[in-house]
Amino acid sequence: MTRSLLQHLVGDAEFEALFTDEAEIAAILEFEAALAAAEVEAGLVPEAAAGAIGTVISSFHPDRADLSDGVARDGVVVPALVRQLRAALGEHGAWLHVGATSQDAIDTGLMLRLARAISLIEQRLTSLEDALGQLGERFGALTMMAHTRMQRALPIPVSGKLSAWTEPLARARRTLGLLRPRLLVIQLGGPVGSRAELGERADLVARRLAERLDLGLATPWHTERDPIGEFGAVLSLITGALGKLGADVALLSQNEVATIAIEGGGGSSAMAHKSNPVNAELLVTLARFNAGQLGLLHQALVHEYERSGSAWTLEWLVLPQMVVATGASLRIAAALIGQISFQSDKPQ
Amino acid sequence: MTRSLLQHLVGDAEFEALFTDEAEIAAILEFEAALAAAEVEAGLVPEAAAGAIGTVISSFHPDRADLSDGVARDGVVVPALVRQLRAALGEHGAWLHVGATSQDAIDTGLMLRLARAISLIEQRLTSLEDALGQLGERFGALTMMAHTRMQRALPIPVSGKLSAWTEPLARARRTLGLLRPRLLVIQLGGPVGSRAELGERADLVARRLAERLDLGLATPWHTERDPIGEFGAVLSLITGALGKLGADVALLSQNEVATIAIEGGGGSSAMAHKSNPVNAELLVTLARFNAGQLGLLHQALVHEYERSGSAWTLEWLVLPQMVVATGASLRIAAALIGQISFQSDKPQ
Amino acid sequence: MTRSLLQHLVGDAEFEALFTDEAEIAAILEFEAALAAAEVEAGLVPEAAAGAIGTVISSFHPDRADLSDGVARDGVVVPALVRQLRAALGEHGAWLHVGATSQDAIDTGLMLRLARAISLIEQRLTSLEDALGQLGERFGALTMMAHTRMQRALPIPVSGKLSAWTEPLARARRTLGLLRPRLLVIQLGGPVGSRAELGERADLVARRLAERLDLGLATPWHTERDPIGEFGAVLSLITGALGKLGADVALLSQNEVATIAIEGGGGSSAMAHKSNPVNAELLVTLARFNAGQLGLLHQALVHEYERSGSAWTLEWLVLPQMVVATGASLRIAAALIGQISFQSDKPQ
Amino acid sequence: MTRSLLQHLVGDAEFEALFTDEAEIAAILEFEAALAAAEVEAGLVPEAAAGAIGTVISSFHPDRADLSDGVARDGVVVPALVRQLRAALGEHGAWLHVGATSQDAIDTGLMLRLARAISLIEQRLTSLEDALGQLGERFGALTMMAHTRMQRALPIPVSGKLSAWTEPLARARRTLGLLRPRLLVIQLGGPVGSRAELGERADLVARRLAERLDLGLATPWHTERDPIGEFGAVLSLITGALGKLGADVALLSQNEVATIAIEGGGGSSAMAHKSNPVNAELLVTLARFNAGQLGLLHQALVHEYERSGSAWTLEWLVLPQMVVATGASLRIAAALIGQISFQSDKPQ
Repeated sequence: MTRSLLQHLVGDAEFEALFTDEAEIAAILEFEAALAAAEVEAGLVPEAAAGAIGTVISSFHPDRADLSDGVARDGVVVPALVRQLRAALGEHGAWLHVGATSQDAIDTGLMLRLARAISLIEQRLTSLEDALGQLGERFGALTMMAHTRMQRALPIPVSGKLSAWTEPLARARRTLGLLRPRLLVIQLGGPVGSRAELGERADLVARRLAERLDLGLATPWHTERDPIGEFGAVLSLITGALGKLGADVALLSQNEVATIAIEGGGGSSAMAHKSNPVNAELLVTLARFNAGQLGLLHQALVHEYERSGSAWTLEWLVLPQMVVATGASLRIAAALIGQISFQSDKPQ
Repeated sequence: MTRSLLQHLVGDAEFEALFTDEAEIAAILEFEAALAAAEVEAGLVPEAAAGAIGTVISSFHPDRADLSDGVARDGVVVPALVRQLRAALGEHGAWLHVGATSQDAIDTGLMLRLARAISLIEQRLTSLEDALGQLGERFGALTMMAHTRMQRALPIPVSGKLSAWTEPLARARRTLGLLRPRLLVIQLGGPVGSRAELGERADLVARRLAERLDLGLATPWHTERDPIGEFGAVLSLITGALGKLGADVALLSQNEVATIAIEGGGGSSAMAHKSNPVNAELLVTLARFNAGQLGLLHQALVHEYERSGSAWTLEWLVLPQMVVATGASLRIAAALIGQISFQSDKPQ
Repeated sequence: MTRSLLQHLVGDAEFEALFTDEAEIAAILEFEAALAAAEVEAGLVPEAAAGAIGTVISSFHPDRADLSDGVARDGVVVPALVRQLRAALGEHGAWLHVGATSQDAIDTGLMLRLARAISLIEQRLTSLEDALGQLGERFGALTMMAHTRMQRALPIPVSGKLSAWTEPLARARRTLGLLRPRLLVIQLGGPVGSRAELGERADLVARRLAERLDLGLATPWHTERDPIGEFGAVLSLITGALGKLGADVALLSQNEVATIAIEGGGGSSAMAHKSNPVNAELLVTLARFNAGQLGLLHQALVHEYERSGSAWTLEWLVLPQMVVATGASLRIAAALIGQISFQSDKPQ
Repeated sequence: MTRSLLQHLVGDAEFEALFTDEAEIAAILEFEAALAAAEVEAGLVPEAAAGAIGTVISSFHPDRADLSDGVARDGVVVPALVRQLRAALGEHGAWLHVGATSQDAIDTGLMLRLARAISLIEQRLTSLEDALGQLGERFGALTMMAHTRMQRALPIPVSGKLSAWTEPLARARRTLGLLRPRLLVIQLGGPVGSRAELGERADLVARRLAERLDLGLATPWHTERDPIGEFGAVLSLITGALGKLGADVALLSQNEVATIAIEGGGGSSAMAHKSNPVNAELLVTLARFNAGQLGLLHQALVHEYERSGSAWTLEWLVLPQMVVATGASLRIAAALIGQISFQSDKPQ
């Protein structure tokens, strides 16, 4: 995958990798294999069929052009993908995707990838809090001038500034930890979310599926997107906290204020003397970006009937961007923290 | 207070009352009285002064015109209000607002009012879940046609539809319960958020203040608005869930679909035969409204320096509207649930 | 009407007056009187009836409680208002609101008020451009330090800064002038937007109605809200331009930068030495506010069927706020321009 | 360029091609070559140097890895790109980018690509209006049931419905035509937007540059993003109008309503009998997407100082997505119009 210049600036390779077609298809295939295996345990699918499904999936290379046509026609990739898989499975084909619908595969696949995203976010938050702690050890005892409403106010210790940067990150990390088990659950509802196609074994299949995928158990939630809306809010809280940090660094590193020095700022094509607080500015950009996307993600809460193509597709357009922006913001903040130093006691 | 026609449509009197000038000033006065009393306990303010402050505040009628001028000049009402109070207090005036800043009074005052708002929201959520439960008792065993992507799909029990409406509300109620103690805390930081003006008794004052106001304790959070951003998200999750309910009712009560009948729908000035699903439509309106406002509320996470007049004022413009919209949505949903009935087994 | 403290800060009395219930009802009554008169000219209504309608309307005091109940039930105020008027009209009652629907009255009434709003905006833009021109005469020849990406760059003349503030305002004024005739048109469609109820005289009635109300002529546009979306964009362009101006003033008046001095800044309840750039900050607030509302106003473009209660009500919640915020921004900018002075040639 | 599955669904290949790295770099190179040539005419650059610049640019293959590093460090690609070009130019290197800054190259490059985008949009709008006209010829005389507030109202001619779909598109096309010359202008300001580096020949260079690039002339507008904000609004008016069309088609093609039949709807992985109005739903998705992005694009109007890295980068994140979404919406609408037919006179 070639990454664009803009991705090098405000993206993040690890997070982008979670939202490629390859990652999405792999996650859907993982769902289908686990579903067949769970249905063997529930006595709904023959063991040989599940074995064949596992084997075919382990080395499956989809016909991409056919998938592209399929998604453009059907609005989701699953019908075409299931068709291709069934063709590859021959006689076992009918045992694939039993009792499931496209949304089961796609939503569960999303959760498999969000699990990885959340782990990455948590790691980066922890690292960042550590880095801020180290900054505190170096500079916390210094005094700096506080500003309120853009005017010089009174001196504060640098440790106070660092606390104001760190506390919201720590809170977001804890909120994310609380949300994790409620968010990362399987989707298994069948065509209209009733699990009717799986009969009385439905809940057993769901339990086994959740175990195999290391996801939580949940009743079908095709139209209940509130955990996703809540997740988006946490993402925006993180980028918002880092946006505040970035705004502060950009202000405090103004030549005239000079409370913070930034090593290795960005260069200009026209002014050789400039050292621009690029990373600080980008944190503000990503905060505003995610805030706006959050407003859109919550528009997608309004699902009509038992499945809304409109609202669901809107979620696809918005959520991955928010996750990547959050990863990028954490990456950039780490770089920025490594660049800055507070200058010796100016106010006194 | 005269309520506008629009407030009668999409507002809620109980929630609006929390955001009047009277309510805001009363909450600020409650803060100032409790602060003085707490400072007595910490030995920072003479008992007689705190007594005088309590007495003056208990019957204080501010000069509204002077407050209006003050807020337009200072950007916050507190400087003018403190000036008026000090004039009324005479010799005791200097003991008012000791070690505090405008933001301490306003943010703590907001929390006093949000405590009431959250209680109201929780009560209404519980009532609504009950009402949906009763609807389930009456109609849950019926069968209705499910629709996916706007097309007839397969039959489902009405109980499934009611679960999809109820579960997000129950989750939002639990999330709100978890957020409550983290959100409803005092603000006490002094001019630059360091509590320096209160010296070594600062934390004691904070503790006593929190006890008196029945709020939680917190380090100063002038620029850390993440709990407010998180609260806004819960509000939008509630209105989003009700927006989905409203969208469903509007669709299912179309004359051609007729799965739901609405008693007492709205009338038309031109078509006497119409019975419009006004309440259902309003739930969609309020969902979209709050979703958009949430995007703005998170823009206000980016505070510059130790206090941002820009970001803070933006919060004032957005948050009260979101709380009232949530209250209105809950009120309207309760009315709508009382109006609807599911029609007998159409799909079979 | 009592104005709230927040309205004294970020509102504007002249613009708020356009969106009171009184103003809305007066505009609806103006529509109904003009419609009856136009229908006399088209031979659809007896002259005596139109005379009675004009007389009753000229001194009509609606029963407000009944209107409040009506709007809450019907979703629009017009059915209740028409009922009250017809009761007052007795035998002539049937000649009121002939061939019209609620939306005709409300949308046309809105246009009557937006005509006034646009005139006010244009006047204030012109005044502001003049004030900026005078600032240029006083300070334009001075040199100031330009900053790019938050760092000192190279000197520029103050006139360059003033041009960057003025040009977008002048462009917005011209855009508004171009939009005015396309926006300010009558709405007359009848219940389903076909004018069928007025028969072959429909276009004549429309023409006469437009002439009487000094509005443009248009085919029915019940669900075509694009001119309103376009108007909202111009409002946000104005507040955005003033937000840029405010951001610059707040930055340039930092104590450390001191390129701009602000006379009469806001005071603090805790720091007597502060002079806060309150007006500059508010311009940023209002820019961000209107930008976010614009995103919501465009959500309201998606009207379903021939009239969407959901989308239309969303417009009511958003558009008036945007107009008032624009008026407030222009008012505050005028005050700010009167407060600032550029300091003598610092960079050289 | 490999297009993702999501791009096959809600993207558009022709529009995506305008926003690749290749397209951006090509446009920047076109700017640099034209600038050098214009500066020859103004006597600022030797003819031989401009010739060399043209030659080198015509076959230049940038070192992509170095550009990626550069953009991540400098926040813009131009410094690294100019460095590479100067290395390739040897002795002529100093004559490249004379008097220009990164923003001149990037903004002008954007305009070169928006010129193409606008032409494409205009073509597609015209085609769509034609297709709607043909639909009118086939079905306009039929009668259909109008619905207001989601309820059956009264019959209307199909031609009325088609007018309501077509008129906003025609208006957006005209608005775009009026905006075109104001939007599509060169950017040439030099490091701080004063053109000071080009001395008294600055305006001559600007004129020649504009002629060579077939763009309009404008004073430097580094921080004046209002024409871009206005363009974004027109994009959202287009997708909003098509979102209304999509919402109508999705509603009218409900099995129970059946006023519209859609040929070749999308299939389901679980319900073989479904024919989903995928294209209609996507139009709603893209309308809501662009509306939300518009709110963000207007947040980017608030540029601080003479160049805001934060606000400018936000524009980069939002505007290309809006243009592509608009192209996709037009593509999908054309497909949908080709799929639908109105059913014979149901209401009578």
